[in-house]
Amino acid sequence: MIILKINWHLFRVTGYNCFVMIKNFKIVIEYDGTSYFGWQRQPDKKTVQGEIEKALSIMTKTKVDVHGSGRTDAGVHALNQVAHFKCETNITPEGFQQGISSLVPDSILIKECSIAAADFHARINAKRKTYHYRILNTKKPVVFDRNYSWFFYKHLDLEAMQKASECLVGTYDFKAFENTGSPKAHTIREIYNAKFNINEPGYLIFEITGNGFLKNMVRNIVGALTEVGLKKISPDDFRKILLSKDRANAFATAPPHGLYLIKVEY
Amino acid sequence: MIILKINWHLFRVTGYNCFVMIKNFKIVIEYDGTSYFGWQRQPDKKTVQGEIEKALSIMTKTKVDVHGSGRTDAGVHALNQVAHFKCETNITPEGFQQGISSLVPDSILIKECSIAAADFHARINAKRKTYHYRILNTKKPVVFDRNYSWFFYKHLDLEAMQKASECLVGTYDFKAFENTGSPKAHTIREIYNAKFNINEPGYLIFEITGNGFLKNMVRNIVGALTEVGLKKISPDDFRKILLSKDRANAFATAPPHGLYLIKVEY
Repeated sequence: MIILKINWHLFRVTGYNCFVMIKNFKIVIEYDGTSYFGWQRQPDKKTVQGEIEKALSIMTKTKVDVHGSGRTDAGVHALNQVAHFKCETNITPEGFQQGISSLVPDSILIKECSIAAADFHARINAKRKTYHYRILNTKKPVVFDRNYSWFFYKHLDLEAMQKASECLVGTYDFKAFENTGSPKAHTIREIYNAKFNINEPGYLIFEITGNGFLKNMVRNIVGALTEVGLKKISPDDFRKILLSKDRANAFATAPPHGLYLIKVEY
Repeated sequence: MIILKINWHLFRVTGYNCFVMIKNFKIVIEYDGTSYFGWQRQPDKKTVQGEIEKALSIMTKTKVDVHGSGRTDAGVHALNQVAHFKCETNITPEGFQQGISSLVPDSILIKECSIAAADFHARINAKRKTYHYRILNTKKPVVFDRNYSWFFYKHLDLEAMQKASECLVGTYDFKAFENTGSPKAHTIREIYNAKFNINEPGYLIFEITGNGFLKNMVRNIVGALTEVGLKKISPDDFRKILLSKDRANAFATAPPHGLYLIKVEY
């Protein structure tokens, strides 16, 4: 009974003398965002969170809330989204990994499932996030990549874009790259790394790692970076937009289907 | 009038004194077969041929028949399908290339369009065709590749499959790999090349080039090759299946979504 008292919040009486422990599960999820209205549960809309919660309710016969590390918009993809959910169950992490994967559409895959500390929170505890934004910069589009990259047939100057990207590294108020109508209380974020990779022929892959991101921040940054690539603005103009903290100075938001949540670190 | 007489079949009187030349256009097409009922036009079904013909009827204000180098089944992809169509028009090849591409869904792309010889026929004149079949042989599937490769989590022995593939090169009666219920008059084909490429980590890409293919021949070959890879049959058993000319000896047909028509040579 001592244990019961100490960890009382972890137990629930499920019968006369049967106790089931509440466990906190951490899952890592890959999804193709093409046919979803984003991560976040919405009534009557197909969302990634909604599909996973539906699978969990079938498996556990109860309503389970899944908490993601953050939302992704409609069309945005994830290679390693992280989420947690709590429930009383005898199902093992492996059982959840395979069970949820088999119940959700095959555009969602639970790559890993493990038991986390009781106080682990996928969003609150996230320390660093990495996103990729894929630009296909070729004369002709690739049919198979139409939902998986932003096709840009005009030549983009990589060197200028690379130079502009460097301005992002550091601690700044990123208000200029936050979508209007969705202000966060604090718009200061630290960016640890921002650069273009060109490992894949034809593709410019923008990689950015930071301690957090404002709404549409990566897509707004990429939108402005392509203006640098088109030589419409200079890397220094880009820096001035960042420092202006004024969204009105920035450019169009890059489309969602080039964006991937790559990694969440804790 | 001499020219008119000589090439009379190329001209048609469209008015009192206006002649429009009938031109033969060759197009090269890339398509993602995922959402199509295959290449061939079918009433009330979305097919690649059907979509291209619809676009052409809008552009030319007349019914135009498009002839492909061959059919592809539902779910099968093409990087360079070839087709031809004849029509009286002043539209340029570039105009068709861009015009059709803009009118069809973005899962179809006209990569090239040129004027071909009057007697060019995309199917009859095809000399060699190359197909790829992509197998993803990893422990876990890749969400983004679910419609673009056959996921195979059991280990496949590449060496044995490579050895079996070699048996295919040469001139054989491929009846054992033809789908039942669709016999062709002549089931003898010459295969110039058949091997697995492993340039992409995790993928086994079967490449086969021949002077022609029977219905489902590549998918039936791949189905049997995976049995070799699983060590259920030996490369020599595979050779015996080929030589038996009996479909009953072969194995399940590999799914369509791993198959790509890569090249048609004339």
